[in-house]
Amino acid sequence: MKKIEGGICAAQGYRAAAIHCGVKAGSPAEKDDLALIVSECTAATAATFTNNRVKAAPLYVCMEHLENGIAQAIVANSGNANACAPGGMDNARRMATAAAKAAGIEENLVLVSSTGVIGQRLNIEAIESHMDALAAKLSDDASEAANRAIMTTDLVPKSAAYEFTCGGKTCRIGGIAKGSGMIHPNMGTMLCFITSDCAIDPSLLRTALQDVVAHTFNRISVDGDTSTNDTCVVMANGKADNELIDWKNEDYHVFYAALEAVALSLAKQIAADGEGASRLISCTVKHSRAEEYAERLAKAVIASSLVKAAMFGADANWGRVLCAMGYSKAPFRPEYVTIGFSSAAGSITVCEHGRGLEFDEDLAKKILVEKEVSIDVDIAEGDAEATAYGCDLTYDYVKINGDYRT
Amino acid sequence: MKKIEGGICAAQGYRAAAIHCGVKAGSPAEKDDLALIVSECTAATAATFTNNRVKAAPLYVCMEHLENGIAQAIVANSGNANACAPGGMDNARRMATAAAKAAGIEENLVLVSSTGVIGQRLNIEAIESHMDALAAKLSDDASEAANRAIMTTDLVPKSAAYEFTCGGKTCRIGGIAKGSGMIHPNMGTMLCFITSDCAIDPSLLRTALQDVVAHTFNRISVDGDTSTNDTCVVMANGKADNELIDWKNEDYHVFYAALEAVALSLAKQIAADGEGASRLISCTVKHSRAEEYAERLAKAVIASSLVKAAMFGADANWGRVLCAMGYSKAPFRPEYVTIGFSSAAGSITVCEHGRGLEFDEDLAKKILVEKEVSIDVDIAEGDAEATAYGCDLTYDYVKINGDYRT
Repeated sequence: MKKIEGGICAAQGYRAAAIHCGVKAGSPAEKDDLALIVSECTAATAATFTNNRVKAAPLYVCMEHLENGIAQAIVANSGNANACAPGGMDNARRMATAAAKAAGIEENLVLVSSTGVIGQRLNIEAIESHMDALAAKLSDDASEAANRAIMTTDLVPKSAAYEFTCGGKTCRIGGIAKGSGMIHPNMGTMLCFITSDCAIDPSLLRTALQDVVAHTFNRISVDGDTSTNDTCVVMANGKADNELIDWKNEDYHVFYAALEAVALSLAKQIAADGEGASRLISCTVKHSRAEEYAERLAKAVIASSLVKAAMFGADANWGRVLCAMGYSKAPFRPEYVTIGFSSAAGSITVCEHGRGLEFDEDLAKKILVEKEVSIDVDIAEGDAEATAYGCDLTYDYVKINGDYRT
Repeated sequence: MKKIEGGICAAQGYRAAAIHCGVKAGSPAEKDDLALIVSECTAATAATFTNNRVKAAPLYVCMEHLENGIAQAIVANSGNANACAPGGMDNARRMATAAAKAAGIEENLVLVSSTGVIGQRLNIEAIESHMDALAAKLSDDASEAANRAIMTTDLVPKSAAYEFTCGGKTCRIGGIAKGSGMIHPNMGTMLCFITSDCAIDPSLLRTALQDVVAHTFNRISVDGDTSTNDTCVVMANGKADNELIDWKNEDYHVFYAALEAVALSLAKQIAADGEGASRLISCTVKHSRAEEYAERLAKAVIASSLVKAAMFGADANWGRVLCAMGYSKAPFRPEYVTIGFSSAAGSITVCEHGRGLEFDEDLAKKILVEKEVSIDVDIAEGDAEATAYGCDLTYDYVKINGDYRT
C-alpha cells in the first residue's frame, strides 16, 4: 500500500467539480459552495450517518437512495445544513433531481449532503440554476476544488489516497472530508466522501465501512457535540477490474486496510483542524480488559474541557487526565494507572500507581508545545488498547462559536 | 419561609472560623485557606460525594465517620485537593485528628474536605500548626470568612439561609458553597456545607439530602467535568427544639422545602460563577413524558459547548439547542418542539414544530445580553418538566484553565 495524490479523484472513473452558487446570501463569490462527484458507472456504495435524533433532510434522502447499496453521484453544498429547515425534504429531493438531470443519471443514484447553518430554508433555486454549469466542469483533477466547496469553518482541506494491489490488479482509494466544530464520537465527521475503483459486494462494503468508522471517525472529538448532518460515504465502482470481493478473503483484508488508512488519515486531519485548535492531541489507553473500556477512557480524556484547556497551556496536568478517566464509567483501578506525555520532542512519565511523580517541568513543557501530542495511559489490567483523537481548547474556539450564525 | 442572613452560622449553635496556614506554597498571606465549622453539640449529618471513580482521600474519611449519621465539625482547606497525592489517607486522618483536638471533640465526629490542585502532597504540617489558632477564632459571624477560605477560582462567595417554622418552633437552615470549574451533573458542587438547628432523624436527613441534591446540584454544569472531591454535607443539631422529625410528616416537608431552597440558591450561584462565565443560563424542558427525560434534555443543552459559546455571543442559535437535545439520548419528536429564550428583557419564540420562525433579531439580542437567560423548550408529549443550570463559555474559561496548575 502506498500513499498517492488525487483525493476523491485518485481512483479510476471518478470526476468532480465545484462552483459558487450563492447558497448563503452575501457569501464571497470566490468561495465555491456546491460540489459534485460522479462515477463513470454505478458503484457499490455504503454510508454511515449521525446518530443524533435530529437528522437533516438530506440524510433521509441518502438512506432511501442507498437501500439497494448502489449509487453513482454525490452532490453537496456548504452554507446551509438543510436541517430543521422549512421545506427540507422537498429541497433535498430537488437537489438530487437537479444533479441527476445534469449528470444524465437516475435520481435514485444521487446522494445529497448539506453542511452549514441549521434552521434556515435552503436556497434550492440557487443550487438548481447552477447545476448544469457545475456538471460541465466535471474533471478528474478537481478533488481539492470539491473539497474546498464543502468547507465551512475548516482552515484547510482534508484529503488522503492510497494505491494497493488486490487480486493482482492495481486498485486505488481516496477521499475528502470537511469537519471542524460539532465533532464528537458516534459518526464523528461532518462530511466524508471516499471513492475506490475496487470491485466489492455492496453488503461487504457496508460491513467494512461500519467497522472502519468505529475505529476512526467515532474516535475523534472536538467539542462533544454530534452534528445533525454527519455523513460518511464510500463508493466502489469496480473500474480496477479486480475479481469481485464477495467474502472476507485476503483481498477483503487488503481493501479494508486501505479504507482504514484513508479514514484514519482524514479523521486525524479533522481533529487537528478542530475549531480554534492549535495542536492535535491523541490519547492511547493500553492494557485494558476490553477495547470498549479503553476506548471509553481515551475518549473521556480527549473530550474533557479541562484536559483540552491544559493542553492549550502546555500544562502537564495529569490530575485532570485521571479525573476524566474517573467519570468515564469505564472500569479501572486508579492505583494501577501510569500516565505520560510524548511528542516529537521526547516522552515523560508523570504519574505512576495513580500518584504523581517528581518530573522535569522544562522537559514536559518542551514535549507539550509540539503540534502533535500524545497522552499515554497504562491501566495494567489486560491486553486491549484504543486511541482517541482530539485537539486543544483555545480562545479561538470561543471566538468562532460565539458568533457563527450572525 | 423567609430568606435571612448568616450563611453557615445562621442556625443556632454553629460557629465558624478561617485562617491562612499556607497550604499552597507562595499563596498570598491575605488569602485564608483553612476553615472550621463546629456545632455546639453532635448533629444528625448526611453527605453526598462525587461519583467519580477517582475519589480524594478526605471523602473516604468522611464516609467512615458518617457511618452512624452523626458528626459535629467540618474542617476544610483550599489550595490542595489531597487527591491522588502521596500519603493522602494519612494526611486526611491527621487533619481530622488535629481539628478534633483543637475543638475538643472526638475524631470520628469530624468531616474533612479539600479542594485545589490534584496529585501533590498536602502540606499537613502547615494545617496542624495552625489548628489551635483557627479554633480560637471560632465565632457565630464568620460564615463569609469560612466561605472565602474554601474558594479557589471562585470570584464571589456563595451563601444562602432561610428561617421556617417546624412543629411550632422557629428553625433555621443556611449554607455556604464553593465551586466554579470542574462542575457537572452527578454531585455537581465541589464543596457545599449546610447547617440547620432543626431536629431530624439521621436516616431521614440522608433521604432528604439525596432527593434535594438530585434536583439542584446534580442539575448544574459548568464544563462537563466531575471533580474527584465533590462533597455536600448537611448537619442538623436540633437546637431549635422542635419535635424530632422521624417520619415523612408535614414537618418533614417543611424542612425539605427549606433545604431545597438553600441548595437551589447555592447551585445557581455556582453556575453563575462558572469559570469565566459572563451569564447564568438555565434550560427548562416542559411537557416531557418523564422528569428523567426532561432532565437529560435540559442538561445536554446546558452542557453543549456550542450552545454555551452561542450564549456568550448572545446569539439566538436555537439549532444548536435542538442539536444538543438530539444527541442526549432522551426520547422526543423534533417535529413537536418549540424553543424560546427569555430574560428580564422579555421573551421570544424562535422555533415551532421543530422549524425556525422568522423572529425579531434585535429583541432576541436584548434578551440574550442579560445576566440571567432562560432557554425554554416545550416538547409537547406529557406533563413532566425539569430545569438545568449552567453558564456561557468565554475566553476567560480557556485562560483560567489553560494555566491553572503552574
